Amino acid sequence: MPRYRLVIEYDGTPYVGWQRQENGPSVQGAVEKAILSLTGETVSIRGAGRTDSGVHAMGQVAHADLSRAWKDHTLRNALNAHLAQADERISILDAAQVEDDFDARFSALRRHYLYRIICRRAPLALEAHRAWFVAKPLDHEAMHAAAQVLVGKHDFTTFRAAQCQANSPVRTIDRLDVSRTGDLIEIRATAQSFLHNQIRSFAGTLKLAGEGKWSVDDVRAALEARDRKACGPVAPPEGLYFLQVDY
Amino acid sequence: MPRYRLVIEYDGTPYVGWQRQENGPSVQGAVEKAILSLTGETVSIRGAGRTDSGVHAMGQVAHADLSRAWKDHTLRNALNAHLAQADERISILDAAQVEDDFDARFSALRRHYLYRIICRRAPLALEAHRAWFVAKPLDHEAMHAAAQVLVGKHDFTTFRAAQCQANSPVRTIDRLDVSRTGDLIEIRATAQSFLHNQIRSFAGTLKLAGEGKWSVDDVRAALEARDRKACGPVAPPEGLYFLQVDY
Repeated sequence: MPRYRLVIEYDGTPYVGWQRQENGPSVQGAVEKAILSLTGETVSIRGAGRTDSGVHAMGQVAHADLSRAWKDHTLRNALNAHLAQADERISILDAAQVEDDFDARFSALRRHYLYRIICRRAPLALEAHRAWFVAKPLDHEAMHAAAQVLVGKHDFTTFRAAQCQANSPVRTIDRLDVSRTGDLIEIRATAQSFLHNQIRSFAGTLKLAGEGKWSVDDVRAALEARDRKACGPVAPPEGLYFLQVDY
Repeated sequence: MPRYRLVIEYDGTPYVGWQRQENGPSVQGAVEKAILSLTGETVSIRGAGRTDSGVHAMGQVAHADLSRAWKDHTLRNALNAHLAQADERISILDAAQVEDDFDARFSALRRHYLYRIICRRAPLALEAHRAWFVAKPLDHEAMHAAAQVLVGKHDFTTFRAAQCQANSPVRTIDRLDVSRTGDLIEIRATAQSFLHNQIRSFAGTLKLAGEGKWSVDDVRAALEARDRKACGPVAPPEGLYFLQVDY
C-alpha cells in the first residue's frame, strides 16, 4: 500500500484537538473522513504531534496508507475539495508519496512551534482565537532571558501536564526565543519532541517573567523543583501554532 | 457636548459593512448600541470610511458626541466591555476627547488601506476570510509596475462602483505599492479619499497584471477609457483592511 505524507494547516478553534475522540470533532477525524469520502477506505492516520483543542497548525504532518496510488497534487486537491465540502477549517498544504518506513511521528527529527501573544490594552477583534490577549505590559527581553534557563536537556516535570503520557520527563529544548514586533510577542520553540502542555506551560511562566513577577532565578527554581505545582499558569491554547516538522 | 474620536478594529466578516443598514448588523450600529448601553444615549457616529460587508479594519476612525465627559481610557474600556458582552467582533483601540471641529470623515488628510492576497495551491484554513485566496502564480513585480500607472491624479471612472455616490470621479492616489513576503502579496494604497470599490477594483485589475493577462499598457488603457466596463473583475472584500487615517 502506498504511503503518503500530508502537511496540514488548521484553525484549531472548532476542534477538540488533533486526535480522534468521542467528545467532539477532531482534525484527525475530519481528515480521515475526507479520505473515506475520496477513496471509500477507512484509514487511521498518524500525526507528528497531538495538538490540544484550540491549538492551530501551519505545518502538522501526518502519514496515511492508501490502497491505490494517487498523483501527489491530485490527492491534495481532492482531499481539499472534500474538506471544503464538509466546511472544515483544514487545508492540506502538500501531499507526497513517501517510503514505507516514513512515520510522521517517529521519524521526526525536530518540531517547531510558535506561541503568539498580543500585548495591548484593547481586546482582539481580528486576532480573536489566534493569539493570547494580554492587557498588561510585558518585557520581552526579560522573557527571552528567562527562556534561556529552559534551553538544553532537563527534567521538565514542572512543565508537563498531569495527564502527560510520555515515559520520561526529560527533553532537550534546542531553541526558545522570545521576540517582539509592535504589539506582537512571539515565542519560538524547537525540540525533537515536547511533553504534553510543555510550550503552553513555558509561555505561562515566561509571561510572569515579562510582568516582572518572576526573575530568571525564579524560573530556574521552578525547573529544578521538578514539581508540577511550581509551574506558572498554563497559557491558553489559542496562541499556539504547530509550525513545522523536520525529518 | 464633548466629542470623542474612536479608533476601531473589526473583523468585517459578520457585518453588512460599516454603515447602519436595514438588511443586517453593521459595525456602526454595533458601536452605537454599545454607546447606548453605556450612556443611555442614542447617538449617530460618523466614520472616516464606509467599508463594505466583509472588509476589515485595523484603524477605522469615527467621532461621537456624548452628553457627559468620560476619561479616555474609561470610555474605551467600557465600550469594549459592552461590545464583548454583545459578542461583537469589534474592538475600540483608542478613545480620546477631541476638539468640537474634529470630523472623522471631513478632517481626514490621508487614508491608508491594505489589500492582502495569499497566493498558493492549497485553500486557506487559518487565513480564511482574512485574505483573497489566489491559486494561480502571480508576478508581484508586474503588479507593482502596473500599479504605478494608477498613482497620481486621474479620472477613476473605470475603477469605481456603479453605485458610487462621490460627486467627482477624480482622485489623487499618493501610493499604490505591491510587495511580497512568501505566499503573501500586499497591496498598500494611500490617498486623501477613495471612490467606492476603488481599491478592490485596483486589486482585481492588478491580479490580471500579475497573471500576465494584462500589460502595463492594458492597465493604462483601462484607466484612460473612463468606463466601468474596462475594469478587471472586482477583488473580493475579505482581502481589504482599512489601516489608518491621518488627520
